[in-house]
Amino acid sequence: MSLLIAVPNRDMTKLQILLSDALPEILIEIWPEIVDPLKVEFVLVWNPPKNLWCNLPNIKAISSFGAGVDGLIKNEPLPNAPVARIVDPKLADDMALYVLGQILNFKLRLNEFHVKQQKKLWQPKRAHQTSKVGILGLGQLGTKTAELLNLNGFEVSGWSRSEKKINNITCYHGDEGLIEMAKSSDYLVCLLPLTEQTKGILNYELFQHLPNHACIINVARGEHLIENDLLKALDNNEILGAILDVFQTEPLPKDHEFWLHPRIICTPHTSALTSINTIVEQIAENYQHMEKGEPLINLIDAKLGY
Amino acid sequence: MSLLIAVPNRDMTKLQILLSDALPEILIEIWPEIVDPLKVEFVLVWNPPKNLWCNLPNIKAISSFGAGVDGLIKNEPLPNAPVARIVDPKLADDMALYVLGQILNFKLRLNEFHVKQQKKLWQPKRAHQTSKVGILGLGQLGTKTAELLNLNGFEVSGWSRSEKKINNITCYHGDEGLIEMAKSSDYLVCLLPLTEQTKGILNYELFQHLPNHACIINVARGEHLIENDLLKALDNNEILGAILDVFQTEPLPKDHEFWLHPRIICTPHTSALTSINTIVEQIAENYQHMEKGEPLINLIDAKLGY
Repeated sequence: MSLLIAVPNRDMTKLQILLSDALPEILIEIWPEIVDPLKVEFVLVWNPPKNLWCNLPNIKAISSFGAGVDGLIKNEPLPNAPVARIVDPKLADDMALYVLGQILNFKLRLNEFHVKQQKKLWQPKRAHQTSKVGILGLGQLGTKTAELLNLNGFEVSGWSRSEKKINNITCYHGDEGLIEMAKSSDYLVCLLPLTEQTKGILNYELFQHLPNHACIINVARGEHLIENDLLKALDNNEILGAILDVFQTEPLPKDHEFWLHPRIICTPHTSALTSINTIVEQIAENYQHMEKGEPLINLIDAKLGY
Repeated sequence: MSLLIAVPNRDMTKLQILLSDALPEILIEIWPEIVDPLKVEFVLVWNPPKNLWCNLPNIKAISSFGAGVDGLIKNEPLPNAPVARIVDPKLADDMALYVLGQILNFKLRLNEFHVKQQKKLWQPKRAHQTSKVGILGLGQLGTKTAELLNLNGFEVSGWSRSEKKINNITCYHGDEGLIEMAKSSDYLVCLLPLTEQTKGILNYELFQHLPNHACIINVARGEHLIENDLLKALDNNEILGAILDVFQTEPLPKDHEFWLHPRIICTPHTSALTSINTIVEQIAENYQHMEKGEPLINLIDAKLGY
């Protein structure tokens, strides 16, 4: 039997070694090197290459390579098998800390001062007097982030598809709730799962409802943001800045306008990285569940998207 | 009667207007424009110019322009009058937030990514796995900063001249305590008052006790740091970086090595700025206390230095 790692464009050799140690009885293969396609039963996958599934008729379980599952369905629909994802308990803490760090960076003008330092300019300026944060998405990551910001004195609101109640967080839902929250957000943080409904949610229409001093933070998926709408909103001074950790195309292409835009801060998808040990543990556990015919841990509804 | 503002090299006209509104019965003057030196009874002062005091024989009260009082005694000793300082209750909150923001900036490598963004380099890197903070000085600012870092999951130690006990903070004191704390500090934050004992406390000998990945943060006074010792420690890889908001000479001179050092982050003394409204309120209150012969608020021992 075999477990296939199908994560194109990334070096998976370290993970292969660790999974071979954890599951010594089976073969761990890295796409496209497959000894016998009929023996592949478990696939760990992100951005599946074309025609991956049609050559693998005996799949019994699939796991996303990360917390999101939007990278699973790229070219073809998934085979009929249960789908799990990796849930790293530290991921939400890391994400919350990244968002807090970036908000403080913006509020305290640390990037502005960094640019001035490079020009040897001593120009003191008071911090932005902004403290209202609106969070799109109140799942595990959104809730944790909301709680951490709240603990640090920020006034936090959150928006989700269905109605929610969280202590000390003003909760909004639905289309009207989205606009209402935007109106009073100094910082708008996207932590939504990527679905047909949330794709392009960060668009020009929404930006127009934000205060002019607002800053957009996208740490979810590049496809949540209409990139040209962001440039237009910045040019028209509808918003003040943007902090982006995710992009439509990653790595961000060299000729992309975001790289050198003075009011856009880019980081290379580092807001929350799943630890390799967590991946190995959860994949090994789910392989054993599959073998015993037990339900997978961290099972998701691939059609719903989360 | 007159209140003299003696804060050279800063525009004090706005403060003069606000103080004139608050104390309409007296003259508010800005050094060196003094109508009658014999009438000056109250002096609000920072970095007093030479021979200030000898021409003002009738001083009944002095106030520092800020929270520190080290800027009071520059050229001559102070006249024999009670000395107060400005205590802005928001100052400690602002300072704590600045230190948290800079530590997160360093931990999450936000400045590194900013430099890479300018070069269009997509190079993901995990955050520093550092969480131990040592704080020099456990007064109002140090304690508040320690508490905020603690709340955000950092492991916080503090050092003070005399023994202290604070919940959840490992407290050190004395020369041995200083070295012991340094040994286990990923971040070493200076929030000490400037006195003869603390001048130059951030020196090469201390840096040698820090871990090689450590980062120094000085938000107290430029004179706490031996600037050449910092350069030597960075060159010798005894420490990893430094974040400085205060300098021996401010503004930092154009030819200073700190400006373009790749491992030093400089901000222009903005970590905690006293609000002008707080200054007006407390000066007006202390002027009235002086008139009625009541003790000043926020009185300090000018000889002790705090």
